[in-house]
Amino acid sequence: MFHGLSAFPLTPVNETGIDEKAFVTLIQRLVAAGVDSIGALGSTGNYAYLNREERLRVLQLAVHSAEGIPVMTSISAIRTLEVLRLAEDAQRAGASAVLLAPISYQALTNEEVFSLYEQVTSSLSIPLCVYDNPGTSHFHFSDELHGRIAELPNIGSIKIPGVPTDPEAAKTRIKKLRGSIPPHVTIGVSGDSFAVTGLNAGCEAWFSVLGGLFPQACLNMTRLAQDGFADEAERLSALLEPIWTLFHQYGSLRVVSAAAEISGLISSPSLPLPLQPLNPSAREYLKLILNNLQE
Amino acid sequence: MFHGLSAFPLTPVNETGIDEKAFVTLIQRLVAAGVDSIGALGSTGNYAYLNREERLRVLQLAVHSAEGIPVMTSISAIRTLEVLRLAEDAQRAGASAVLLAPISYQALTNEEVFSLYEQVTSSLSIPLCVYDNPGTSHFHFSDELHGRIAELPNIGSIKIPGVPTDPEAAKTRIKKLRGSIPPHVTIGVSGDSFAVTGLNAGCEAWFSVLGGLFPQACLNMTRLAQDGFADEAERLSALLEPIWTLFHQYGSLRVVSAAAEISGLISSPSLPLPLQPLNPSAREYLKLILNNLQE
Repeated sequence: MFHGLSAFPLTPVNETGIDEKAFVTLIQRLVAAGVDSIGALGSTGNYAYLNREERLRVLQLAVHSAEGIPVMTSISAIRTLEVLRLAEDAQRAGASAVLLAPISYQALTNEEVFSLYEQVTSSLSIPLCVYDNPGTSHFHFSDELHGRIAELPNIGSIKIPGVPTDPEAAKTRIKKLRGSIPPHVTIGVSGDSFAVTGLNAGCEAWFSVLGGLFPQACLNMTRLAQDGFADEAERLSALLEPIWTLFHQYGSLRVVSAAAEISGLISSPSLPLPLQPLNPSAREYLKLILNNLQE
Repeated sequence: MFHGLSAFPLTPVNETGIDEKAFVTLIQRLVAAGVDSIGALGSTGNYAYLNREERLRVLQLAVHSAEGIPVMTSISAIRTLEVLRLAEDAQRAGASAVLLAPISYQALTNEEVFSLYEQVTSSLSIPLCVYDNPGTSHFHFSDELHGRIAELPNIGSIKIPGVPTDPEAAKTRIKKLRGSIPPHVTIGVSGDSFAVTGLNAGCEAWFSVLGGLFPQACLNMTRLAQDGFADEAERLSALLEPIWTLFHQYGSLRVVSAAAEISGLISSPSLPLPLQPLNPSAREYLKLILNNLQE
């Protein structure tokens, strides 16, 4: 489950509702490319903007369209009570794994975060991926806390927010985290611009935003890195530098939703207010980049 | 509405639900003390952990028990659609004002935050208080943005997160913000330890956590500051220094909920998981502090 390319598709949503048909089309692209797993309702899947019923519906569509490819879904919520309900929904809907970030309103202590994972994993019968994403959760995991949580039952993977850009520093980082957790727990890199560096440094999985829209390109990089062609994988990632720059500037969600709109896969607007689409000049620049990449 | 002491009561809530009876008792204390307004369902009122129905119910209880004292309520939510629904509920339930923070999952741009306030205020018939609380919203307002938002219709006040501890620096800060906003928009200080300094520096209101539990003590400080007895107000605030220290160490919510439990006003646990109560040793220390203050 937690190896190779895990592709995180968009959930196109605006003030009139979720575009279910477009969502299914996005899933079908992932199936056709043969990604290793699908991360429905990740940050890119706008889970935080949808209510419980909407999250269940989108997950059901994903599982139904995935043709046997394992589907992971986020169960993150501010209140534990809601996390437990979402975990129940996920299991009943046929998710193969769940993803949990310690999102919060009042800042959480290490003890509160540990207890959250303890309570949730004790009620699960499918594996859980720890979602370490300080950019949205504003919580900073120490390796010591990662180690304590990874010892809990049903923990399968840790989704880390990135690695240092220097390959040797990245290897040192992964080695240090690996030393804190049991061997059966995998490490998956996110932050697409770091992905190949992370895979080359020993991450077993890439939890990918771009892979949710352009699975074939991301699979190519993943397989090269997995097969030991580190330099060739880095070369392909470097070609995408203009995309990574836009990700850093505007956030990957705004860029990928604009790219999906430009590609004609979803209609505009595809983000829930207060989120606004990419501004017109960035969108024009993105159009150019996408054209160049296709040539 | 946005002058004097605005007291923010707790909403006692745990895994079995909301303790409505205890909540009403807390409101009755505020009424008996004669606070200037009540901020139901602020951060201290656990709004972020309650669903729409629960927020409506708590607001109705507050308005019903307030005996004519104006009640403000938070309408903050991650999605604009939900903010608009909460605004409707608040108006129908008889709130005199609403409080809105730009809480988010994906970090918001200045333009997105401005548009949120623009859209919400255009649908309101009661005033709105801008809730500037980077500690929970992770959004940092510039004075320029405060100025643009304050020009919108129905903006009544700005709840700022604190002022510099030095009285002269506090005056400079308030003067600068005042210069950016129209004269009919008041400035209210929050962060209780800064409150008297803020009032002495020219803030018209104190949006108070401690005032939600100990309204009389906070009213005394407010009236002294409002009547020009700056030093005497500072002296009373300095007596509470042990409380302010605990606020900074554990978060005001955990401390005030423990204080309400110790005072026998609400039963334990009174916070929703994953939030945990104050640890036993801090609780013992708080008990000592409260005893000393009562002597």
